[in-house]
Amino acid sequence: MKSKSDTLNIRIAEALARIRSERPLIHHITNLVVMNDTANVTLSVGALPVMAHAAEEAAEVAGRAAALVLNTGTPTPDRAKAMLIAGRAANHLGIPVILDPVGAGTTALRRQVHARLLDELHMAIIRGNAGEIGVLSGAGGELKGVESVGGPRDLAAVARRMAGERDTVVAISGPRDVVSDGERVLGVDNGHVWLTKVTGTGCMATSIIAAFAAVERDYLLATVGGLACFGLAAELAADRAGGPASFKVALLDQIYHLQPEQLAEGARLVSW
Amino acid sequence: MKSKSDTLNIRIAEALARIRSERPLIHHITNLVVMNDTANVTLSVGALPVMAHAAEEAAEVAGRAAALVLNTGTPTPDRAKAMLIAGRAANHLGIPVILDPVGAGTTALRRQVHARLLDELHMAIIRGNAGEIGVLSGAGGELKGVESVGGPRDLAAVARRMAGERDTVVAISGPRDVVSDGERVLGVDNGHVWLTKVTGTGCMATSIIAAFAAVERDYLLATVGGLACFGLAAELAADRAGGPASFKVALLDQIYHLQPEQLAEGARLVSW
Amino acid sequence: MKSKSDTLNIRIAEALARIRSERPLIHHITNLVVMNDTANVTLSVGALPVMAHAAEEAAEVAGRAAALVLNTGTPTPDRAKAMLIAGRAANHLGIPVILDPVGAGTTALRRQVHARLLDELHMAIIRGNAGEIGVLSGAGGELKGVESVGGPRDLAAVARRMAGERDTVVAISGPRDVVSDGERVLGVDNGHVWLTKVTGTGCMATSIIAAFAAVERDYLLATVGGLACFGLAAELAADRAGGPASFKVALLDQIYHLQPEQLAEGARLVSW
Repeated sequence: MKSKSDTLNIRIAEALARIRSERPLIHHITNLVVMNDTANVTLSVGALPVMAHAAEEAAEVAGRAAALVLNTGTPTPDRAKAMLIAGRAANHLGIPVILDPVGAGTTALRRQVHARLLDELHMAIIRGNAGEIGVLSGAGGELKGVESVGGPRDLAAVARRMAGERDTVVAISGPRDVVSDGERVLGVDNGHVWLTKVTGTGCMATSIIAAFAAVERDYLLATVGGLACFGLAAELAADRAGGPASFKVALLDQIYHLQPEQLAEGARLVSW
Repeated sequence: MKSKSDTLNIRIAEALARIRSERPLIHHITNLVVMNDTANVTLSVGALPVMAHAAEEAAEVAGRAAALVLNTGTPTPDRAKAMLIAGRAANHLGIPVILDPVGAGTTALRRQVHARLLDELHMAIIRGNAGEIGVLSGAGGELKGVESVGGPRDLAAVARRMAGERDTVVAISGPRDVVSDGERVLGVDNGHVWLTKVTGTGCMATSIIAAFAAVERDYLLATVGGLACFGLAAELAADRAGGPASFKVALLDQIYHLQPEQLAEGARLVSW
Repeated sequence: MKSKSDTLNIRIAEALARIRSERPLIHHITNLVVMNDTANVTLSVGALPVMAHAAEEAAEVAGRAAALVLNTGTPTPDRAKAMLIAGRAANHLGIPVILDPVGAGTTALRRQVHARLLDELHMAIIRGNAGEIGVLSGAGGELKGVESVGGPRDLAAVARRMAGERDTVVAISGPRDVVSDGERVLGVDNGHVWLTKVTGTGCMATSIIAAFAAVERDYLLATVGGLACFGLAAELAADRAGGPASFKVALLDQIYHLQPEQLAEGARLVSW
């Protein structure tokens, strides 16, 4: 069950190299808490961020991007409207849309926003924690604020089924990240517990995944690549950090310095 | 007049331990400048932040929180409306509401917002600088932007009277923080001058106070506990920092590492 | 052509000293990505930030400030309205307005916002990258998101002409910053390539320029002073940093510590 795939490791390393050479533009419509961090993590991995959430310009900005991140933390009806407009433009042009369903199911507003986004848009990738994906998939999940405190038992089965039903890639973050495109299921064992002590690390992982999706059209691969890149950098950062805040600084530094060869060597991918 | 209360020190240390074990959820409706920092400081002290300012979900989020922070920096009418909705839900359920009246009195909008919040809601705790509390209490205060440049002379009397009139706890931040519940008055001598060189440190102190208030229903004690915890971490951080930005990083690290025994030992509480 | 002006270096050092003693209040209406960083950089250089973007209080806040920053990243119609209101108040009172036209020309919304701001307000200083100033001046420029990927060839001529036409100071950031008031043209050679790896460094430079403009009414001098101060601190910070995020921390620390004598010594001003 646990067999390290050298081919996969090489392919995600190649994707990282392409991010560095192509510098894809990643449009974010995201929450107010993480805007600075997700812009900086996008720069650190080698891509270019553009943060633009006005409905009046959402389609134009999305239309020139290589990937679109929709992150529903701090939701408002206005921001949800901009997400729909940007998402339709991206879908129309074949630009991958990556959804980060922060706090799924915790309020009526979030339920409505997620329902509309999932009904009206095609997502290339959906990344959340076990509680969020549990809620969205119907398998059941529980959150305390935006932190998962209860999710489905068999994450692989849930990810596979939801991905198949929605023709997307589903990623469930956790000690082992679980990713499926409806057929294949992969795990990512990189990461560090301090990622749970900093706000917005899930959002940052989503931005990195979007950068990979901008240059790698096998979105399952893009997702595990982004998660491995982020998790490996977190491992390296933890060695240099004295607490959660210096860890965040070191994490962004490490993402900037992470070389494709290091990723090929250090990514701990697991296939089922 | 200056007598260190060992009992108080032990009780605030116990409150810190409870934050770590209970991980209370702290709902913030706060200003756009400090959202990331206040979320991270909440995580660092051991609680869970949820940042949600849409009127559509404010009551639902507040209703599941253990404390609610209302911070009026970068005010807008929409945000004030969400604060009223969240605050009413919290009041109804007995969840403590902590007000941080940023920039009190400096504009008509802020005067209106503060007047409505104070008229329509019951605050468990109000924390501001001398200028802000001076303005709100009617004792007189002056601000330059959001920084206090003039406040009442006898802070203890002002805090005590305002707290008594409004059935709340009033905290005035400064070189010596002054806190009163209308009867008792306590001072907190922890802190560091670099706290004045980083934006949002008052807001961060309020978030820490809210975490204490979530686990300690003697709100005077919760307030001095939060202020001592924050100020002591600042002292430890200053030893490791090379300037205001590295101080902020070290401050969040130190809050994360601060042990209840350290707080019991290092809190410098003063009773009148 | 390249002659270091000792007189200029001394005058910008004196301006830095005045910032530290006068602590001017800098009103920002800025984008959501950089609010925290620009507030902190304003504190670090020795001034006081106030971030207030509600139309309801924009004029009042601007009217008490010593300079007003209008930064059009993450634009919305509401925020543009607040900018116009604040700008009119500032113009009426002779308070310098500094425009940072983020992403100029990339969307219809931004074109409209910039056209109205430039039509209805008098700017003391306009600072952008080559693409942004190229677009605004009509000389031609291209952006990828908010990053310049193409600008006019002769930056000095473009800056001089645009400054002359609009009775303002125009600054074009780049490896060599180019600044003109329509007659004089000056270059600033301070800086570091890592400034391009952190989001919002242009915005931070604008905040520093605003602090200088608050105390130095020769706005050409204020602009080169701010750019030299920021760029010199970046050089010092790069020596201590391990990547873009630790560089940002060190940059804010260095700005805080930078002494007027160091600026007089280290500013690399170039006159045409």
